[in-house]
Amino acid sequence: MKKYLKGDEWNIIEEGFHAEFNKVSESIFSLGNGRFGQRGNFEEYYSGESLQGNYVAGVYYPDKTKVGWWKNGYPEYFAKVLNAVNWIEIDSWIDGERLNLADCKILMFKRILHMREGYLERRVIVELPSGKQVEIHAQRFCSMANNRMGVIQYSITPLNFDGDIEFHLGLDGDVRNADANYEEHFWEEVEQREDDGSQFLTMRTKKTGFEVCVGFYYSAHLDGQQLEGGQQAINRDQYVGYKQKVEVQTNEKLTIYKYVSLISSMDIAKTCLLNESKVNISTMKKRSYVDLLQEHQDAWKKKWNESDLIIKGDVSAQQAIRFNIFHLNQTYTGEDERLNIGPKGFTGEKYGGATHWDTEAYCIPYYLRTAEARVAKNLLLYRYRHLEKAIENGEKLGFSDGAALYPMVTMNGEECHNEWEITFEEIHRNGSVAYAIYNYVTYTGDRRYLADYGIDVLIAIARFWSQRVNWSEEKQAYVILGVTGPNEYENNVNNNWYTNTIAVWCLNFTIDVLREIEVSWNEDYQDVLTRTNFKADKEIDRWKSIIRQMYFPEDKVLGVFLQQDGFLDKEQVLVKDLDPKHRPLNQKWSWDRILRSVFIKQADVLQGLYFFEEKFDLETLRRNFDFYESRTVHESSLSPCVHAVLAAKLNRGEQAYELYLRTARLDLDDYNNDTEDGLHITSMAGSWMSVVEGFAGMRVRNDLLSFSPIVPKQWECYSFMMNFRGIVLQIEISENSVQVSNKSADADLLIGLFDDTYTVRASCKIEIPNKKSGNEEKIAY
Amino acid sequence: MKKYLKGDEWNIIEEGFHAEFNKVSESIFSLGNGRFGQRGNFEEYYSGESLQGNYVAGVYYPDKTKVGWWKNGYPEYFAKVLNAVNWIEIDSWIDGERLNLADCKILMFKRILHMREGYLERRVIVELPSGKQVEIHAQRFCSMANNRMGVIQYSITPLNFDGDIEFHLGLDGDVRNADANYEEHFWEEVEQREDDGSQFLTMRTKKTGFEVCVGFYYSAHLDGQQLEGGQQAINRDQYVGYKQKVEVQTNEKLTIYKYVSLISSMDIAKTCLLNESKVNISTMKKRSYVDLLQEHQDAWKKKWNESDLIIKGDVSAQQAIRFNIFHLNQTYTGEDERLNIGPKGFTGEKYGGATHWDTEAYCIPYYLRTAEARVAKNLLLYRYRHLEKAIENGEKLGFSDGAALYPMVTMNGEECHNEWEITFEEIHRNGSVAYAIYNYVTYTGDRRYLADYGIDVLIAIARFWSQRVNWSEEKQAYVILGVTGPNEYENNVNNNWYTNTIAVWCLNFTIDVLREIEVSWNEDYQDVLTRTNFKADKEIDRWKSIIRQMYFPEDKVLGVFLQQDGFLDKEQVLVKDLDPKHRPLNQKWSWDRILRSVFIKQADVLQGLYFFEEKFDLETLRRNFDFYESRTVHESSLSPCVHAVLAAKLNRGEQAYELYLRTARLDLDDYNNDTEDGLHITSMAGSWMSVVEGFAGMRVRNDLLSFSPIVPKQWECYSFMMNFRGIVLQIEISENSVQVSNKSADADLLIGLFDDTYTVRASCKIEIPNKKSGNEEKIAY
Repeated sequence: MKKYLKGDEWNIIEEGFHAEFNKVSESIFSLGNGRFGQRGNFEEYYSGESLQGNYVAGVYYPDKTKVGWWKNGYPEYFAKVLNAVNWIEIDSWIDGERLNLADCKILMFKRILHMREGYLERRVIVELPSGKQVEIHAQRFCSMANNRMGVIQYSITPLNFDGDIEFHLGLDGDVRNADANYEEHFWEEVEQREDDGSQFLTMRTKKTGFEVCVGFYYSAHLDGQQLEGGQQAINRDQYVGYKQKVEVQTNEKLTIYKYVSLISSMDIAKTCLLNESKVNISTMKKRSYVDLLQEHQDAWKKKWNESDLIIKGDVSAQQAIRFNIFHLNQTYTGEDERLNIGPKGFTGEKYGGATHWDTEAYCIPYYLRTAEARVAKNLLLYRYRHLEKAIENGEKLGFSDGAALYPMVTMNGEECHNEWEITFEEIHRNGSVAYAIYNYVTYTGDRRYLADYGIDVLIAIARFWSQRVNWSEEKQAYVILGVTGPNEYENNVNNNWYTNTIAVWCLNFTIDVLREIEVSWNEDYQDVLTRTNFKADKEIDRWKSIIRQMYFPEDKVLGVFLQQDGFLDKEQVLVKDLDPKHRPLNQKWSWDRILRSVFIKQADVLQGLYFFEEKFDLETLRRNFDFYESRTVHESSLSPCVHAVLAAKLNRGEQAYELYLRTARLDLDDYNNDTEDGLHITSMAGSWMSVVEGFAGMRVRNDLLSFSPIVPKQWECYSFMMNFRGIVLQIEISENSVQVSNKSADADLLIGLFDDTYTVRASCKIEIPNKKSGNEEKIAY
Repeated sequence: MKKYLKGDEWNIIEEGFHAEFNKVSESIFSLGNGRFGQRGNFEEYYSGESLQGNYVAGVYYPDKTKVGWWKNGYPEYFAKVLNAVNWIEIDSWIDGERLNLADCKILMFKRILHMREGYLERRVIVELPSGKQVEIHAQRFCSMANNRMGVIQYSITPLNFDGDIEFHLGLDGDVRNADANYEEHFWEEVEQREDDGSQFLTMRTKKTGFEVCVGFYYSAHLDGQQLEGGQQAINRDQYVGYKQKVEVQTNEKLTIYKYVSLISSMDIAKTCLLNESKVNISTMKKRSYVDLLQEHQDAWKKKWNESDLIIKGDVSAQQAIRFNIFHLNQTYTGEDERLNIGPKGFTGEKYGGATHWDTEAYCIPYYLRTAEARVAKNLLLYRYRHLEKAIENGEKLGFSDGAALYPMVTMNGEECHNEWEITFEEIHRNGSVAYAIYNYVTYTGDRRYLADYGIDVLIAIARFWSQRVNWSEEKQAYVILGVTGPNEYENNVNNNWYTNTIAVWCLNFTIDVLREIEVSWNEDYQDVLTRTNFKADKEIDRWKSIIRQMYFPEDKVLGVFLQQDGFLDKEQVLVKDLDPKHRPLNQKWSWDRILRSVFIKQADVLQGLYFFEEKFDLETLRRNFDFYESRTVHESSLSPCVHAVLAAKLNRGEQAYELYLRTARLDLDDYNNDTEDGLHITSMAGSWMSVVEGFAGMRVRNDLLSFSPIVPKQWECYSFMMNFRGIVLQIEISENSVQVSNKSADADLLIGLFDDTYTVRASCKIEIPNKKSGNEEKIAY
């Protein structure tokens, strides 16, 4: 836990340089625009602790897998997000002395992430070993208005000397992934080109053959006066750049503008990459830095108008939630169905492949509610496009006849992960892919999606479950053996309640959707049967038999569902009785000890109660929540949010607030001591969920959007923007009232508040008294 | 399955060169003398498929572990058997053309492993690409009489030309392990020395600092006439040798004798290594090749007199069992308590560390019965010396107060293995260490061992079990959660019957031994309590409570013990109904599919019925055997033997014979397609066990050695040698009679045959009619 950043409603501020946390700061101060992004590295050379990181969406490398003991069925490759060309370099020699903050005395240091405007700023005053003092002022952004563009404004001012400054501006393609399994270099150079004062470097990934062309030009100014001439090209292997030496006098400010174009072969045919890059550079040359920054800020303004969440009376919570929203919007903009949300976004390399079940379970709800439907739809189509690969993956594991198992971790639809207990056994992920379809059509009302795309995925998933169960003579029921549930602190268990529940739900939902297609789009129904080679009677009969006779472990005496068979054989101890020196368990205990203990990493039974809450009454939720939460150590970043939502539903504001804090400031406070590897992007969606689904109690049932809010007592009030079926809404909640504003110019909307419904007219606001206290007691047993 | 070797009672014969199986042959034709050994590589250069292998007992390297996903508690190093100096090199250039069998036309090829005499022979006639034909005749052995010595006789005869032959004789220290995790080189050179016509090379292992000094001299003879002079030294980095060029005429035989000394710092202080090597070379120089070979053969004769097993009427079975005995005797001679039996002995590198639970469960019974007691005792002392490390290992996993968990795989007492489901969970291995103590004292009668050494190990193991169980409120019993039993096709199961059984047995046995020490060696008892810091009342009370209230899964209806909780939830299919194209499962199925299937890799419940057979009646054995064997795929080399013993006990000769064949010819027929990696040394002991404990029904109960033999109908009769408490016996069994010869000159022995006892007088033989048919039917259900 670290507390070195300043509280502020709109900005993240580091005052004074915390060299020891620099890698943490680099993660926190990351920038991105959905197409590319980068860690908050310094522009100038820095020999201290740093993880240099630049990433381009969708560009990956299949790194050869590293395993201790090979198991049949493991994937041979692990698709990794790639550290790409470093384009921020602005390196300076002052009278021949290289500027390196690690060598300097830091007289002033301030790093600010301007979240509203979307740029990173740094002001530094340092004294070099020679005694020379300079002031640095840097600003940069990855443009949201033109997502092929990054710009830096960088100035140096000598404070106590006259002398010369030689600066080097480069594009460096000789970068490596810190997490490469065999320290291989994943890139090779395609070409270098200098053209009309611009340098271009095209790099290609080995094996996958992605190409990325980065180009730049720059201008240098002395006290606002542009310098003409004097630049010298630098070209060496995998590197292009310019250098220039300038005489400067005390207090004269040397300012450099570095305008960068970055385009990958994801978007432009390789043969056109260089040309398109030149065009992009020409476009930039026609505008000033100020213009470009303004366009970028305008794009961010639009983002905030759709997704801001305001908390009054709690600066720390306000800063945190905006930090989460900011990074979610930087990571994924929903323009390309081939992209997804990596666990670290553009802020680090860890966990390699982009896509986990986090996307379906945590991220889709966020994008669904804060953006137009196409954004979430693209995340669904991503899985739809991978269906064939998911079926192949199923075949690799012994399934047949079009049964799909979606990968645990993937980039291109192929499985990347290779721990058998996860890769082969954490099969509930298949359920969340189906659940996301349900979530999408429920929220958007776009039911055509089911007939056009959804049903193919659903049938393939239903087929998987149908083959994955087996009949137990002993239990006279269907069982699902050998799985890992969402709680990864259990492996290879039998009859994980959550998995059995979502499996049956998938079968039911698929049958319902088939019926809906048959009824609503009968002309498409036959096509569905044909293209999926569906044996309607036979397959549905089997599914129904499984639905009817599935086994669900539960304990009637305690009145709780059992996480898995044998759960009550464990020693029943509670987290509150755990000696703090044993925590976090995953760093203190050997794996077997974790496995046989009762302690839970993240919501498991409770994940099911969250997904399928309509099926269970409040008493059932309460009993299960109290039983399981008291055994949960929340050692996954995805854990607290689901618990926060459920606690709020149980009207326990205090507990919900505690849980919310753990997720919202996870990275800002480096709660788990791992922010240096990158931010927990996917769990950021969970923070948002905690507020909107948790405190505000947002739900959609039968096409009705409703709220049942509470206010944590630490907050005066809070409000947030939502997009429901094309209508932008603002919800404002205080202890006394709930207000809903309909920002649409022409559409009215029926909404639910507590137990009543109200029509909110276009461009109008309604206000009703708040009815919930959020004061119920927690019971631990 | 391969069938390219000739059947023969005493020899392994390859006729015609099977280049495609050369690595298999290299494993099969391996030599060793307990101190060092080597694969059956060619002396001359060979560019075809080959795994060059030379190994020195006890010399290992801690290779850095390779894992996909690190788990807390994993060992950082994996101690590996080391590929060491290659000393067999005799490389030839014939008129400048290098002799390389891979380039030649093979006109005749015969490779023979003379098991009775203990040497390897090869006769080859080849035509070189130039058309020149030569005959090669090679013989070599690793001396059993002087275990620091290896000798080669190698001759080349030109068959159709006169010309010159230049030969190079070397010691090559620049060798690598084929299974190195990061392709590192584990050795560095200490020194080279030439001295009086001998070359010496001393190499040292990195990190562990073992030193091995290898030296050699040679003589060359033309048609029996020793050549004088003409040798030139070769010295280069990590290599020493001699070369010599000789003019030869058609049909003139050039014979080279290479006399090698190999001594490691395991035996001799590093400072004396070179000197001792020189002394060793001097000793050899005083004897002829014929003398040295004779001494070696005499040593083998003695081995065979103690351990031979004769089968009449079945050449294939005879060859197989001698092959097993031959390699067991080559691998371990029992002279050094720091040594153990690696899974591949001196025949390959796979599985790294030397010691698995195979030693206790399979190998000790063999050595116990075919050698003096000190041999098995040294294997026990090996674990005794590692007790402290086993306690440290327990501490790493959260145990305390002197609880020991012996490692799954080890060289020096530290755990090497790193799959959590094995390393942390296959804890039954601890039981086999205790069981070996029981086995040893039962067979040898050396009960003092208990007070001197055994009790320390037993208490530490009992403490482990005492802490590893937990109380289940649900079951109102003690349970053991999260284990892997002997059947490694199940991981992380609860209440593995075998594990629970051996845990309780360990507690009981430890209590019994404590009582025995208190009664028999009361003067030592207090010392035991003190040195183990034993809280007699408290600890024994706890153990008794666990013994009384341990949970054992069973199914009363089927009348079988359950391998683990939930075993009957699996789809109950039998191996006979498994499509052969799915086999072996471990190559065809993904791991999860194997885990959730009913199929069993090796004896698990049945391992318990084998170890503790006295506790169960024959009907219980029969039901469990029929239930489990029909679900067992025997995909461990250790599987068939236990089943063969039990099948024989059930009087099912046919089934026992089938099972016996799978273990005895496992390597000769390359049954599992993996003999090229090395031989399955530890399972070889199981082959012997199948005959002696299986067919012959050998048992020791209450100090009485007894037999209850059957004869497989494929055999006329069989006989074997045993050493029981210092008395050498020969047991001869035919369909009609059982004969027991007492080879002792002065000691009589009471033995049991079927249900009666007989006294066999010193130097006498008794004969009684055979009473068992071995004809009971197998029942599958």
